[in-house]
Amino acid sequence: MKGNLLIAHGGGPTAVINSSLQGVIEEAKKHSEIEGIYGARFGVEGVLKEDFIDLGKELDSVIKKLGVTPASALGSCRRKLTEADYPVVLEILKKYNIRYLFYNGGNDSMDTCNKIAKLAGNYEMRVIGVPKTIDNDLEHIDHCPGFGSAARYVAISTLEMAKDVESLPIHVVVMEVMGRNAGWLAAAASLAKKDKDVGPHLIYLPERPLVEEEFLEDVKEWSDKVNGVLVVVSEGLVKPDGSPVADTGVVDGFGHKVPGGVAQALSNLIINKLGLKSRADKPGLLGRASIPMQSFIDREEAREVGAFAVKSAISGKSGYMVSMKRISSNPYKTELELVPLEKVANVEKKFPLEWINERGNGVKKEFADYCLPLIGDPLPEYISLKKVAVPKK
Amino acid sequence: MKGNLLIAHGGGPTAVINSSLQGVIEEAKKHSEIEGIYGARFGVEGVLKEDFIDLGKELDSVIKKLGVTPASALGSCRRKLTEADYPVVLEILKKYNIRYLFYNGGNDSMDTCNKIAKLAGNYEMRVIGVPKTIDNDLEHIDHCPGFGSAARYVAISTLEMAKDVESLPIHVVVMEVMGRNAGWLAAAASLAKKDKDVGPHLIYLPERPLVEEEFLEDVKEWSDKVNGVLVVVSEGLVKPDGSPVADTGVVDGFGHKVPGGVAQALSNLIINKLGLKSRADKPGLLGRASIPMQSFIDREEAREVGAFAVKSAISGKSGYMVSMKRISSNPYKTELELVPLEKVANVEKKFPLEWINERGNGVKKEFADYCLPLIGDPLPEYISLKKVAVPKK
Repeated sequence: MKGNLLIAHGGGPTAVINSSLQGVIEEAKKHSEIEGIYGARFGVEGVLKEDFIDLGKELDSVIKKLGVTPASALGSCRRKLTEADYPVVLEILKKYNIRYLFYNGGNDSMDTCNKIAKLAGNYEMRVIGVPKTIDNDLEHIDHCPGFGSAARYVAISTLEMAKDVESLPIHVVVMEVMGRNAGWLAAAASLAKKDKDVGPHLIYLPERPLVEEEFLEDVKEWSDKVNGVLVVVSEGLVKPDGSPVADTGVVDGFGHKVPGGVAQALSNLIINKLGLKSRADKPGLLGRASIPMQSFIDREEAREVGAFAVKSAISGKSGYMVSMKRISSNPYKTELELVPLEKVANVEKKFPLEWINERGNGVKKEFADYCLPLIGDPLPEYISLKKVAVPKK
Repeated sequence: MKGNLLIAHGGGPTAVINSSLQGVIEEAKKHSEIEGIYGARFGVEGVLKEDFIDLGKELDSVIKKLGVTPASALGSCRRKLTEADYPVVLEILKKYNIRYLFYNGGNDSMDTCNKIAKLAGNYEMRVIGVPKTIDNDLEHIDHCPGFGSAARYVAISTLEMAKDVESLPIHVVVMEVMGRNAGWLAAAASLAKKDKDVGPHLIYLPERPLVEEEFLEDVKEWSDKVNGVLVVVSEGLVKPDGSPVADTGVVDGFGHKVPGGVAQALSNLIINKLGLKSRADKPGLLGRASIPMQSFIDREEAREVGAFAVKSAISGKSGYMVSMKRISSNPYKTELELVPLEKVANVEKKFPLEWINERGNGVKKEFADYCLPLIGDPLPEYISLKKVAVPKK
């Protein structure tokens, strides 16, 4: 079927979302059925505004560098389409003779994708979802493109922070990492654990409500043992009643409390309740944008997932998301496959409770077996001195 | 003069403090006058405890990797020696026959170093300060080892954050970077500026007091022009009355307000006063520990500075800090020299006011000329699409 292709991004960027874009464009150019290769600027907002760019007009040398360019080269948005928007979107897609539609996003975006696919009716259009999220919370996929790089960022940052805290052991450092409601990214801090007494000493995920007294006991126990303590927390930590551990204390224009600052809140708690020196750090969005810490496996997979989406559409498939199935961890091997969009739309895959330790302050080895292949090159091997003591005089 | 060498670290680690250690050890091994090569664990605390390690017993392969290992391999501390401590320290140095003393730190440490050198009296000991600080606030040196790498971290992080904010332009992001009372590091954000409308849009340094109304006007002006705004602030920002723009609201064991959180405070202000969506991020200590973003020039210079310290001591010098004098920026060339410790002890070099723009919300080009050679490899060239519009139908 001849016609135009449209790709759009939804939600937060990742370090490899452009690599999927590269995969889509490179594959699309191989198929004469695909006439125009269009990109929507700023996701569905660009679709509604008919703000499309002609990706066929970009230089090959630029396309080739997309994989090592952070953020979304097309632009993205967080707009959720209303029921009234959908028919408008479909009319626009028809007007531009879009016959191949690729939507690159997380579980919200897969819902959008699914609804458009269903609505198309007798307008022949192949709709394929391209998965993407640093949160790794999509179901029916071994892991999401974008997660491996963000996990690598967390692991290397934790490793370096642990070295810093060990070498100037004057405080408890609480480091906040992204991941919203799922603990996958915070768990990646565990990959940095090299030595029993060196950090990260404590890791808290949103899947286990944080009990303040237990948290303080944990920190106290470690600070009695070592001088510098490193605590890694997920931004989405909740209390036993399900409410967030922290909000900024600020109310936005809609009257909603602005979330954020869990590391700072816990650091303040440590100072106030335990009388220890403490500080909070939060690389925040940097964790999804770092190219120096990109995982090459993640980048390759993101590209392949994009290319596979195009191949699937060309072969007649529609209404699916591209998925990765793990064949083995060692050697690492995956296979690409398709899953129906309705199975992944709006579903959140949480971190498995059975991979969290009993106390809820650390992650079991099973997670490392799962995650290590995804971060690409092994973590840097930073040396430690033998430290042979000079005999006392 | 035959005798033992002792090296100690003071204050916060940098990404290249171990490179200076490498330089000291490698050079020391070349000189038969130097018998034992000792390191103090955790700075002057290790000296007072006679907690020394024998660096001559470390494998060459380990020493060679020091330059690419973050934090302080010896350990550091923030302890300030009291007047009563000094004679104790001197007795310990004599007891261990320390004839070559190297203290690697910032302006506080140079003061310590200076006092020990003066106190030595007729005990023959060569004392040389090895400069180190990410804050770049030592006087009588073109720039401090450790600054180039931290500046590279800020520049790359700002570049990536700017891409993220441009591609999902839904908020004002306020990013906090280190530097205490000096704006050198925050200024490095300006190196990431590639395009007039792309971030960083605003940069605030502690050398210019922050006037709240002007700050809000600046943010408003940019948010009227572009959807996503990136603001970079130094952790040490002060109000016109000299008080910090933010503290954590927490009081420590000594009754002092705990500083920190200037980005969060300003972000809250933006939400409350301008009604805009805003978030704060703060990579914090990560900015001084990153090896993937280390500057190779900084690493090389740090090693050479360490080696030069040993050569100077061997040649009979004492009571000096190793300094770097810039011969030219293009091509970049520096010369090593010595400056008397009393000239650098406790003196802070601020960011030049004439390099700050008139409004106090940005940095002039002179700074880039100064800083670019220090960050090593050029910044990554991330592509942007041409974005040829598809004609509207």
